[in-house]
Amino acid sequence: MTAQPDQIGTPAGRIIISVDAMGGDAGPSVVVAGIAQSADKNPDIGFILHGPEDTLRPLVAKRRILDGRVAFRDSQDVVTMEDKPSQVVRHGKGTSMWSTLESVRSGEAAGAVSCGNTGALMALSMMRLRKLPGVNRPAIAVLWPSTNPQGFNVMLDVGADIRADAKDLLQYALMGASYARNGLELMRPRIGLLNVGTEEHKGRPELKEAHAMISEFAEAANFEFVGFVEGGDIPGDKADVIVTDGFTGNVAIKTGEGTASLIGQLLRQAFKYSPLSRLASVLAITSLNRLKKRIDPRRVNGGVFLGLNGTVVKSHGSADATGVSSAVKLAFTLAQSGFAEKLAARVASTVELTQDEAHPASADAKGQEGQ
Amino acid sequence: MTAQPDQIGTPAGRIIISVDAMGGDAGPSVVVAGIAQSADKNPDIGFILHGPEDTLRPLVAKRRILDGRVAFRDSQDVVTMEDKPSQVVRHGKGTSMWSTLESVRSGEAAGAVSCGNTGALMALSMMRLRKLPGVNRPAIAVLWPSTNPQGFNVMLDVGADIRADAKDLLQYALMGASYARNGLELMRPRIGLLNVGTEEHKGRPELKEAHAMISEFAEAANFEFVGFVEGGDIPGDKADVIVTDGFTGNVAIKTGEGTASLIGQLLRQAFKYSPLSRLASVLAITSLNRLKKRIDPRRVNGGVFLGLNGTVVKSHGSADATGVSSAVKLAFTLAQSGFAEKLAARVASTVELTQDEAHPASADAKGQEGQ
Repeated sequence: MTAQPDQIGTPAGRIIISVDAMGGDAGPSVVVAGIAQSADKNPDIGFILHGPEDTLRPLVAKRRILDGRVAFRDSQDVVTMEDKPSQVVRHGKGTSMWSTLESVRSGEAAGAVSCGNTGALMALSMMRLRKLPGVNRPAIAVLWPSTNPQGFNVMLDVGADIRADAKDLLQYALMGASYARNGLELMRPRIGLLNVGTEEHKGRPELKEAHAMISEFAEAANFEFVGFVEGGDIPGDKADVIVTDGFTGNVAIKTGEGTASLIGQLLRQAFKYSPLSRLASVLAITSLNRLKKRIDPRRVNGGVFLGLNGTVVKSHGSADATGVSSAVKLAFTLAQSGFAEKLAARVASTVELTQDEAHPASADAKGQEGQ
Repeated sequence: MTAQPDQIGTPAGRIIISVDAMGGDAGPSVVVAGIAQSADKNPDIGFILHGPEDTLRPLVAKRRILDGRVAFRDSQDVVTMEDKPSQVVRHGKGTSMWSTLESVRSGEAAGAVSCGNTGALMALSMMRLRKLPGVNRPAIAVLWPSTNPQGFNVMLDVGADIRADAKDLLQYALMGASYARNGLELMRPRIGLLNVGTEEHKGRPELKEAHAMISEFAEAANFEFVGFVEGGDIPGDKADVIVTDGFTGNVAIKTGEGTASLIGQLLRQAFKYSPLSRLASVLAITSLNRLKKRIDPRRVNGGVFLGLNGTVVKSHGSADATGVSSAVKLAFTLAQSGFAEKLAARVASTVELTQDEAHPASADAKGQEGQ
């Protein structure tokens, strides 16, 4: 109702990110603080902000850096963490989440960010943005701190309920490779398939089948397939992209987060133990901060939905301002690299490959190696 | 052939642990070093050692503490990490692993420890020791560092390939509760069912079914059911026992281990960064060692096979002497507490419960609350 595309569109070349102000655990003030951080760091971002305009305007007005860089889309309803995705798809038209995706659908924003209910966001995204031609199941990909030179590995799917069959896992491998190429600048990413052992006879039947299929497509799709990997390789250096089903990926990422947080807690206790250790902690503080920054989950906040017509970044529900800001940065980076278009081309080439099973390494596919 | 039960049986009251010297990554010398550590700490343990006697005797002879505390069972074959469980079950009779389990089966040892191939060990254990009456699938339970007062949570199953249905998950809950009661001295353990969210509508159908079944049995089996938990709760304080299928549990535990090892590596890097941080690390060393000891996976080395007629502890394949020693300690503690017999009674009472569906909280079951 009070859109100001002229304001947020200037100066020319600004990339507009559509942001859902509602649905996060910490409320809209933290989301506004987050986009203010982004605006401060990056003059090339503008925002469309979705939620109750009467609540949002005063919050934005308090941040001078956001002057002239935010357009509002009033929506009074909010998708809560308890709402079932199926209900939101049917009755969610008045929600800020729905409105956030509409801005991507209409093309006025280059990407969307929401801290809300993951299941609902995925269901709405599939309905409103539609899957890319050739994609059966979209996936959620996250970055995970690793011992690899790039500092992070990609893991997908972490999207929760979804069971994946062998073909889905193949598509995750292709989409993950494309994301690693564009997001981490790895020209020939190494793909690993998550299993309970690295021997080829181990694991569930669909994993063995996926192993064969991914092997077959590796050369044409310009990635290296390292075969089965284990949970310990998610933060390791054997692969750059870890492919798994959404249930397993979701449990793995939360286990990793929980373990990191346990260690942080124990580290603080250890340094409070005696006067000497408290002195040591003062001297160690820069080292510890360096470590903290390296594995801070807020720095890599944001699961990217892969396989849709448009970029959607799911920020952690409990994200603080820094977390929101890094989710916005991720949406911005992907929009700037033209990732969505490159991924679409990659998936389309795979559809051709699948149809041309006798020659998976066809000339067509090789022509798109950079994607 | 050269058994000396008289030697290892004295002094009276020694608990005999059957140890597979072969199959670990580091070879028999590390296993012998491990049992020497155990023998040093605990005068009440004796050993039956399985493997090529001509290799083992000289290794044992070098450790004075093992004098008169080890009997040998010669077996020339070894189960390798590459062997398929089905092959081992058919052709494994001459292996040290088979022999190790025979000592438990015959009653001459109170528990078994092996660092070998997990799948083969489970398959052999099921065949030679047999499942407890009423148990459909045995499970492997591990201890995991947590923020709970007892310092550890129990997680099961982590046994790899196995899919679990709702009834299996219920049995894991009952067996895990019994293990927590006997192993961690928690009179009324809190049980959580691992899922991708804590809302009751989330997750796979078998998880919803298991949720209902475990709820129903909680009072009769004397545990508290806290409902669905997430990956982050494995090292957390919401539950004492985390119940999941073997595939998910296996991935979760390896992800946690990998994350802990990544953080350790980054911590060392952080402290090497500058002269000041190197100084800090010298002062911090006792704090860091305290932390390391708290989360050292070797301290909690050993997955326990639950649901068999006899105690089998699977030590990590890459365990060093300290790791082997803590696996032996676990087998000893469980043997001493009469855990196997208590678990058998608990499972038997559940069979009655299942047969008596109208009154799950029957007087019979309540009479066995201490188990």
